[in-house]
Amino acid sequence: MNATAVKTANHKQIDVAAYMREKGQRARAAARLVARADTGAKNGCLFSLAQILIDEKRAILAANAEDMRLGRTNKLDAALLDRLELNEARIEAMADGVRQVAALPDPVGEMTDMKLRPSGIQVGRMRVPLGVVGIIYESRPNVTADAASLCLKSGNAAILRGGSEAMQSNQAIARCIARALRDAGLPEDAVQILDITDRRTVGELVAMPEFVDVVIPRGGKGLVAAVSNGARVPVIKHLDGVCHVYIDAEADLDKATAIAVNAKTQRYGTCNTMETLLVDAAVAQQALDRIAPIYREAGVELRGCERTRRILPDARPATEDDWREEYLAPILAIRVVDGFDEALDHIALYSSAHTDAIVTENYTKARRFLREVDSSSVMVNASTRFADGYEYGLGAEIGISTDKFHARGPVGLEGLTSQKWVVLGDGNVR
Amino acid sequence: MNATAVKTANHKQIDVAAYMREKGQRARAAARLVARADTGAKNGCLFSLAQILIDEKRAILAANAEDMRLGRTNKLDAALLDRLELNEARIEAMADGVRQVAALPDPVGEMTDMKLRPSGIQVGRMRVPLGVVGIIYESRPNVTADAASLCLKSGNAAILRGGSEAMQSNQAIARCIARALRDAGLPEDAVQILDITDRRTVGELVAMPEFVDVVIPRGGKGLVAAVSNGARVPVIKHLDGVCHVYIDAEADLDKATAIAVNAKTQRYGTCNTMETLLVDAAVAQQALDRIAPIYREAGVELRGCERTRRILPDARPATEDDWREEYLAPILAIRVVDGFDEALDHIALYSSAHTDAIVTENYTKARRFLREVDSSSVMVNASTRFADGYEYGLGAEIGISTDKFHARGPVGLEGLTSQKWVVLGDGNVR
Repeated sequence: MNATAVKTANHKQIDVAAYMREKGQRARAAARLVARADTGAKNGCLFSLAQILIDEKRAILAANAEDMRLGRTNKLDAALLDRLELNEARIEAMADGVRQVAALPDPVGEMTDMKLRPSGIQVGRMRVPLGVVGIIYESRPNVTADAASLCLKSGNAAILRGGSEAMQSNQAIARCIARALRDAGLPEDAVQILDITDRRTVGELVAMPEFVDVVIPRGGKGLVAAVSNGARVPVIKHLDGVCHVYIDAEADLDKATAIAVNAKTQRYGTCNTMETLLVDAAVAQQALDRIAPIYREAGVELRGCERTRRILPDARPATEDDWREEYLAPILAIRVVDGFDEALDHIALYSSAHTDAIVTENYTKARRFLREVDSSSVMVNASTRFADGYEYGLGAEIGISTDKFHARGPVGLEGLTSQKWVVLGDGNVR
Repeated sequence: MNATAVKTANHKQIDVAAYMREKGQRARAAARLVARADTGAKNGCLFSLAQILIDEKRAILAANAEDMRLGRTNKLDAALLDRLELNEARIEAMADGVRQVAALPDPVGEMTDMKLRPSGIQVGRMRVPLGVVGIIYESRPNVTADAASLCLKSGNAAILRGGSEAMQSNQAIARCIARALRDAGLPEDAVQILDITDRRTVGELVAMPEFVDVVIPRGGKGLVAAVSNGARVPVIKHLDGVCHVYIDAEADLDKATAIAVNAKTQRYGTCNTMETLLVDAAVAQQALDRIAPIYREAGVELRGCERTRRILPDARPATEDDWREEYLAPILAIRVVDGFDEALDHIALYSSAHTDAIVTENYTKARRFLREVDSSSVMVNASTRFADGYEYGLGAEIGISTDKFHARGPVGLEGLTSQKWVVLGDGNVR
């Protein structure tokens, strides 16, 4: 066995680069066909997939049981095993998700802004698929059906690379997808699920700009960093979520309390959870006296600047590192600031540009906050927890982008499309 | 002098990486201020710049004369010297260009699609600057004023890296820009023009994602390839323009003739010039009998497939390479195809996805062409020469993208912006 040969799920020896290039070529060819597929064919395929997933429940559960058995042998931790595990309810939820994507409006083919120009040409834009989308994810097998549906609905071919621990489950779902594509008369290569999980597949996937138009890593920071590093194709990246709530001097303290509590405690592990609370000095005593007991009751550890600790002596001293930390845990950093501009300066310096919110009744400060805070989601009098594709009405979320290029914040189906120019003439020349 | 030290225009020794990082840091700081600058301040600065360019005409011409003298000493070719040369008319045109950018609508701050969600939040998007834009260009000094204006109008900070041969001219224009920024109360670092032209500046510029949000190379294929290669920031790339016109069996031959002639002969050196003419076999004899004499008269060398050469025996045989070639010259490849699908197959295989056009009176084929041809501009009964920011009504063109991500085709001010999410609430929590 030479250096680049690995075993597939079927224990054949193969060359990773050649394997990936073949996947790429097939995806590129299929992309042309799926781009022009009409909405009826795509939705038909998705509804059929939902049904096949239900019909093949037992086969999928058997495959998943194999993964779970191997996972236990390999001593995977409990959280990972939980993400990996499928059961009847989870398969039904997977099928429901596929049906929900079918129900979304088709973004492809929409023509907008068809202006008639002085030259006589009519020019505007048509929304089109990006082409080939690579998705790299970890243990949850439901992402396989989810990602396949989103790519197909947006007219893209997909190359999916799931985690090694979910290999059998993913292959079982892959067989359902292949059947649904075949039944709908769509090319099977429109969705290819890798049957090897060699780490080099990721490196190859992001190094084939001729075959792959964008790669989306769905997983933790480590995965995102590994995928982005040295990528030669665009990557929709989701990095840190160091989110802020700023309680302004003119905040309604009922709203401030509700938002500060919700943004921190509704869920601790999500990227849109508040990690730092900023409070204007003018209302710091009042606000913190009201909010801190609720945090304490919820078991949230408080870390504060010096002025915070004068109000909340039980808070641990916050260090410089605390302002930069995405805790993803029941810990909150609190800083008292002297007014609006100091709050904005703090956010400009420490925010990861994910989601930041102000609580204020002042119209002008609300408008300034919306304009001047350069984050993917900027909010007035609302909890940062709303930064989410479903809450924003996108119907589905492919990922959240912390980049500025192409798409920012929650990315829906539209993020898997681009716009080309269309020109209608009548024999016009320059 | 150590390995990374080079001389600036003022003959100081410096470290390129440190020099570029300092520019990056200054740009990042200025970007925050210029992003929030109101339209009045930005336009005021641009109108003032236009006036300063006129007022400083003599200083600019003197600097340009130095560049020209050095260029002649270094035996630059005549075309390059022509691009480099400034005169009164060219400076007036430069000032006019700046005023035109001032007259464009400000893309920044526009809020769209503010939907009221069932949760009670109102959510939509606000158009925002990308942040820091790097522009790399060659000999024309007018690009300095042009690029600076476009970046400033779209609320971005700019780092401009011109050609070494235009160093003195660019520095003279840079002084005008700095004065205009100062006069308008905008940060001078909003537009920084490098005063060294060491090749490594390009490598550094595309390797600082922490300071630079996008880089746009404005120049030939060599420059674009050099800039894109290994870039760690997004690059708006403009590569080949292998553009097609397909004369369908149901084409109006008057329109076909006008378009085929215009698309090839109006200008030979532009990216939107047709390089391959496809003709349906059903009308090949008729169409080519009409069009070929016009090409011959214009001095266009014809290269054809076998069937073309049966109709035009004087055409040279086209090889496989001809279908892939961007001639940028009075040469045209011609291929006779059997119907619409063969034309689409040819375009899918050989087009550089820049601009492709069909000439037809058939409604269904027109619609299919628009949908199925995956190029940045797709046209019906219009000359490929229309693929241009000004013709499309963008007001200005920052570049043309042959990529699919973020922007395709002619890129206007909007291409230097992104959209963030804004959420308006009333104390809403999840």
